[in-house]
Parts: sequence; structure tokens; C-alpha cells
Amino acid sequence: MNTIDQLTELFEHFPGIGPRQARRFVHYLLSERQSYRTNLSDMIRQLGSQTNQCKQCFRWFVKDDASSGLCFACANPSRNARILFLVEKDADIENVERSGFRGHYFVLGGTIQLASEEPEKYIRLAELMRRVETDGERLSEIILGFSATTEGDHTRLIVQEKLRPLAERFNFKLSSLGRGLSTGSELEYADPDTIASAMSSRR
Amino acid sequence: MNTIDQLTELFEHFPGIGPRQARRFVHYLLSERQSYRTNLSDMIRQLGSQTNQCKQCFRWFVKDDASSGLCFACANPSRNARILFLVEKDADIENVERSGFRGHYFVLGGTIQLASEEPEKYIRLAELMRRVETDGERLSEIILGFSATTEGDHTRLIVQEKLRPLAERFNFKLSSLGRGLSTGSELEYADPDTIASAMSSRR
Amino acid sequence: MNTIDQLTELFEHFPGIGPRQARRFVHYLLSERQSYRTNLSDMIRQLGSQTNQCKQCFRWFVKDDASSGLCFACANPSRNARILFLVEKDADIENVERSGFRGHYFVLGGTIQLASEEPEKYIRLAELMRRVETDGERLSEIILGFSATTEGDHTRLIVQEKLRPLAERFNFKLSSLGRGLSTGSELEYADPDTIASAMSSRR
Amino acid sequence: MNTIDQLTELFEHFPGIGPRQARRFVHYLLSERQSYRTNLSDMIRQLGSQTNQCKQCFRWFVKDDASSGLCFACANPSRNARILFLVEKDADIENVERSGFRGHYFVLGGTIQLASEEPEKYIRLAELMRRVETDGERLSEIILGFSATTEGDHTRLIVQEKLRPLAERFNFKLSSLGRGLSTGSELEYADPDTIASAMSSRR
Repeated sequence: MNTIDQLTELFEHFPGIGPRQARRFVHYLLSERQSYRTNLSDMIRQLGSQTNQCKQCFRWFVKDDASSGLCFACANPSRNARILFLVEKDADIENVERSGFRGHYFVLGGTIQLASEEPEKYIRLAELMRRVETDGERLSEIILGFSATTEGDHTRLIVQEKLRPLAERFNFKLSSLGRGLSTGSELEYADPDTIASAMSSRR
Repeated sequence: MNTIDQLTELFEHFPGIGPRQARRFVHYLLSERQSYRTNLSDMIRQLGSQTNQCKQCFRWFVKDDASSGLCFACANPSRNARILFLVEKDADIENVERSGFRGHYFVLGGTIQLASEEPEKYIRLAELMRRVETDGERLSEIILGFSATTEGDHTRLIVQEKLRPLAERFNFKLSSLGRGLSTGSELEYADPDTIASAMSSRR
Repeated sequence: MNTIDQLTELFEHFPGIGPRQARRFVHYLLSERQSYRTNLSDMIRQLGSQTNQCKQCFRWFVKDDASSGLCFACANPSRNARILFLVEKDADIENVERSGFRGHYFVLGGTIQLASEEPEKYIRLAELMRRVETDGERLSEIILGFSATTEGDHTRLIVQEKLRPLAERFNFKLSSLGRGLSTGSELEYADPDTIASAMSSRR
Repeated sequence: MNTIDQLTELFEHFPGIGPRQARRFVHYLLSERQSYRTNLSDMIRQLGSQTNQCKQCFRWFVKDDASSGLCFACANPSRNARILFLVEKDADIENVERSGFRGHYFVLGGTIQLASEEPEKYIRLAELMRRVETDGERLSEIILGFSATTEGDHTRLIVQEKLRPLAERFNFKLSSLGRGLSTGSELEYADPDTIASAMSSRR
């Protein structure tokens, strides 16, 4: 297999990219200047060496010189360390930050598939337990920040079950994100569950 | 203009129907049996004479023999008359019923456009005021059940302002539907407002 | 079942309309003036009595006083009666007229489903044969104006087979619409068949 | 700007990729093994050194050892060198090959924008003229293989004008791809131009 075909195949692994668009990417790269390609190639190679996975929350971040192995949120002493926000993946954190949250995070690394027997294979459950065992004393709340999807709900229930004994031992709260009408939702097209949630969280 | 063109034009008024689909409707009717057309024609004509607009909540409903001029909800003494749910239009009520609500309704008949000077022209504000003046004593809450859209928000603010003096006089609560993740929402794609709402209504 | 539910069910038969939009149609009608409903009701009822199915091409058309039982195209002596354009349905004719064709038509009334044993049940094959038997002498060409879909192709092959003996007896041509790039097609996304057709009809 | 932001920006140049998906690509790469990233990085870097732009048709191709500077089509003596197929971009060639064409190609490298004063800035017009000056003697036909879009049509007219004197001098044909129904087109939704083309290329 030649470079063009091999590269097409690598791009097919990108999220949301099929064979056709993967091929277009290669054609695009061919039409670009060599300097752009070199630049892109260098960046991708450096990504590993210039980024670190935070040893506390497992999110990826760009190293600085005096790297402590901690990401900006975990390293920042002025953030509220009593609230821990569990997210599925790195990309969720950016959105949560934009909403104004200023506590700590933990990245589970995915969701648990419905029929799955071994949840530990999909998400960082063992790492989460260790983290909570260590930090339990100072925690007042863990927010289970899962998507409002079937798989998100399934994962939430499993994680909740696992965390409950620790929540009782250390006396912190386990909370889930509120459901309701999201921006743009019309009542006529909302599902009954969403309306019922919006009703019970009316204010 | 002939029957085919005239009928096409009438179908173009249907919600979400453009000239092309309106024309298809006419072609469809032409290809159907005369009995179907007669049936449809009769039903449309009867719609007016066999339905009533409820004199209390302004929703349309099918008359029965002992018609009191009230719809099923307004006429039902076992429903909770202390809670009044304001909706934009008839179609919203079906969704709210499905979510389990068993109080009373009031159909405003629309939303108020943003730049509008005369809100009364768009919605049944005068009728609402009269209803609340009359029923105020027994009300404990009015739920402003607007869509989570710009126009829904705008209308909610105006209606809220109008109702506030009555809420104080009669001592009932004015509430709005809770915002949050709606079924199917993913954290990665949710807007910051929705996440902030979901956070503040977490439980 | 009440009028609202019955009418919803009737609208569900309209092409491309599901239960939800059917219900919206009824709510829309309820919100309209009675005069609009009466008008719509009358038009639908009149559709049958004010239209005729052309006895020659089977298209529906609006009757005029001196009705000959023939549609505008069949009745017009200045149109080219030597070319007969077969279409699947009435709506196709409008598009063909817009492209400038000024010959005669025959509406088959549908396409033949792939696994079907009895083509006659789906389209007016017997009526077509009678028409061609009668008019064969003056015909120079029959254009098989089917859509470029699997079912269109299937129907074309069956109709072609049926017409071939008549084409030989009366010495007229059987032609099919040319394939190629249609307006808006990009070469990169065109399928090989379309490109091959576009190549062989290049000019 | 850090590596993550820089890489996001580079991915935003990819065809059809916005800021959000560019960011997802980076998160995806972060979650992948280092070996995948190294592999991808190497491939992108090699793309320049392992591919050549054909000196005759300007398409990009993978070098082999005994590289002549010609792509597979230009180097293959058994292909029909009397027919030259002009395409907008590399990706079109794959589709044309799949349709069975076995002549020669020339990649123009784009289309000419509508209001443009200097066509030469958008496509390889000078290179095309040189190629045709050189090969004119052996050519019997040039196919202008443009997309059936406004910009494709505009480019076709300009290129046609430029090539006409050469076509007369060397006595080759200038042809354009046939228009008509493309696979999947329904007569009811086809535009009049497409139907008129399909009619005139009927067979």
C-alpha cells in the first residue's frame, strides 16, 4: 500500500470521517505547500511530547516549563476543590468552563456500553475510586456530569452505585445535572420526560 | 383561477407546506376515490360545528351532547384547579398531558414578536387577566409554560410583568419551566446557558 | 373516534405527512376562520365534479363548459401528435411542459414494484396498449419518460418489452431519456454510471 | 499559542472542517497511542517526498523507483492518447476511471470564480495551452469534464474559448459531458434544463 492509501486509512480513524472525506484530506494535503505539511507533521509528532495527561484528573494539557504534572484546574489553588465534576471526555470540560464552573474535574474517558459486563474496560473507574479515596475528606459534592443519552444514563447509574459507599463514608453529596428544556427547545416537540423534568425543576 | 390552482393555494397556508407539496396534495386528492374526498370535505366542514373553543381556557375541543362550553380539563372537578399552566398553543397541551400534569390550562394563542409594540394583538392577554381576576382566590401557582426560544422568553417576561401585581394581590406563585439538558443532549454540544441551568438545578 | 382524530387520520394519508404533522394540520384548521374551512371543504368536494380524467391520456384536468373529455394537450390540434411521452404521474407533466416539450402524453399512473408478478395491477398497461393500437399509424416515437431510479428502470424495461411488437408493426421509435450530469452535479460525487452516460452523450 | 491550539488551527484548513471538529480531531489524537501519531506524522511528512506531480497532467501520484516523472496514465502506452479529459481536480480522476475511461488527463487545479478578471490565477490555463500546443497533432478530442454547476459552466466557457483556435489548427473536437437525468433523479423534481437535456440526448 502506498503513502496516499495509507494516509487515507489513517484519516478514516478520525471522528466522523469516512473513506471519501479521508481521501479528500489527502488530496488537500497534496495540493498544499510542503511547509504546511511539515508544520502539521511536526505538530502531530510534538503533541505527545508537549502534552501531559494530568495525573490527578486525566485530562490532556500542554506542558509548561515548571510542570507539576497537574493541569491548570488541578494546579490552581484558588479553585473550589470541594466540588468534583465527572465528565466523559476532555472536550466536555471546555463547555463546562464556559458555563462558569470553577471547581475540579475528573475525566472518565468514555461511557459504558449497555450490554457490557466489565465497565472498568471502558472508563477509569479504578482511578476514580483511588482519587475519591484520597480526596474524600475534603469533598462536599461530586457532580455526575453525563450526557442525557441512554449510554450516559447507564454510565451514571453504574458510577453512582460505585461511589455511594464512599459518599456515605466521607459524607459528600452525589448530584446529577438537572434535566429540562434546553436552549431552543419548543414545548410542542419536547418529549414527556423532558417536560416532566422541566416541571419539577420549575422555579 | 381553476379548482386545482385554488386548492393548491389553500394548502399553501398549511403549516410547513410550500407550493410544491401543496400541488402534490391536490394531485394526491385527484388520484383518490371520490368517497375519500367527500369524507375529508365533510370532516373539515364539521370541524367548526362539532368543536367548541373552551370559554375558560380557549382551547378547541370536540363537543359532546351535554356540552357545558368547557373542555375536558376545565370541566373535570377532580383536576387540580389551584395550578394554572399557560401554553402558547393547543398542540402544547397534549405534550404537557403526556408528561403527567393534571391541573388547568390557559391557551395564549401565540407568542409576542420581539419588536412588537402591542402585545395584546398577538396573545390573549386581556382574556388571561380576566381569568386570573376571577379565579385568583383559588390559585396557588401559575406556570409560564413557554418554549425555551428567544420569542418564548420575550413573551414570558411580558406576561410575568402583567401578572405580578395579581400574584401579589392573590398571593399565588409565578413559576417558569426549568432549563437543563433535554433528553438526548450531549454535554459536548450543549450551550453554556443550558449547562449553567443544568448545574443550578442539579439534584 | 371524534372529528379531530378522524381528520388527523385522513391527513396522514397525504404524501409525506406523518401523525404529528397531520395533527398540526387539524390544529391549524381549528385556528383558522370558518370561512377558510368552508372554502377548503367546498374545493375538495368540487375537485371530483369539476375535474375530469382525460379519456385519452388519463391525466386529471379542470373541466370547462364545452368539455370534450380531453385535456388541454390532447385537445390541442397544434401540438405534435406524432410523439407520445409516457410519464409515471400527473405531476411529471408540469415539469416536462416547462422543459419545452409540446407533444402528447400518457399517464401510466405509477411504477411497477420490483418483485411484482402482475404489472397490470400497478400501471395502465392495458389502456396504453389500446391507445397505441389506435394511434399507432400516426406515431413516429414513444418516449419512455421514467425516473432514473431502480423502480423507474424496472418499469421502463417491462413497458419497452410490451411496446416493441407494436413499434415494429407501426414503425415508430421507442426512446428513453438521456442520462448524464444533472444540474448541480459535481464530477467528484457523481456515480460511475452517470459519468459513463455523460461521456457517451457528450457533444 | 500552544500545540493544541496550533494544531486545531491547522486542521481548520482541511476541507469541510470547522473549529469544533478541528478541536475534536486534536482531542482524538491526544487519546490515541503515540505510535499512531508518529505514523500519521511520518506519512504526512513523506507525502511530499514520496509523491510527484505528473509533469504532463499535473496530477499527484506516488513515486516508484524507476520514476519517469509521469503518472500511471501518462506513462501507460496502451491508453488512448488521442483523447484528453480535462478535470477540475485530482479527486475527479478516480471517478472518471471508475466509469471506464482509458484516455489521458489534464488537471486544471480548480474552477474560475464568476466575477474573476484573471482566469489564469485560478487554473493551469498556460500549462494547458503548452500541453495542447505540443500534443495537438495527435489529439482527436478534448473532453471538457467540468461539473454541472454555475462555476463549472463558467470555467468551461472560458476554457472552450481559449482552446477553440487550437482545435481548428490541429483539427480536434472539443466536447462537453452530456447532461440528463443522473442516477436517482425523479422526473417530478428535475429542473427544466435537465429534462430538456435528457430529451435531446434521448436514445
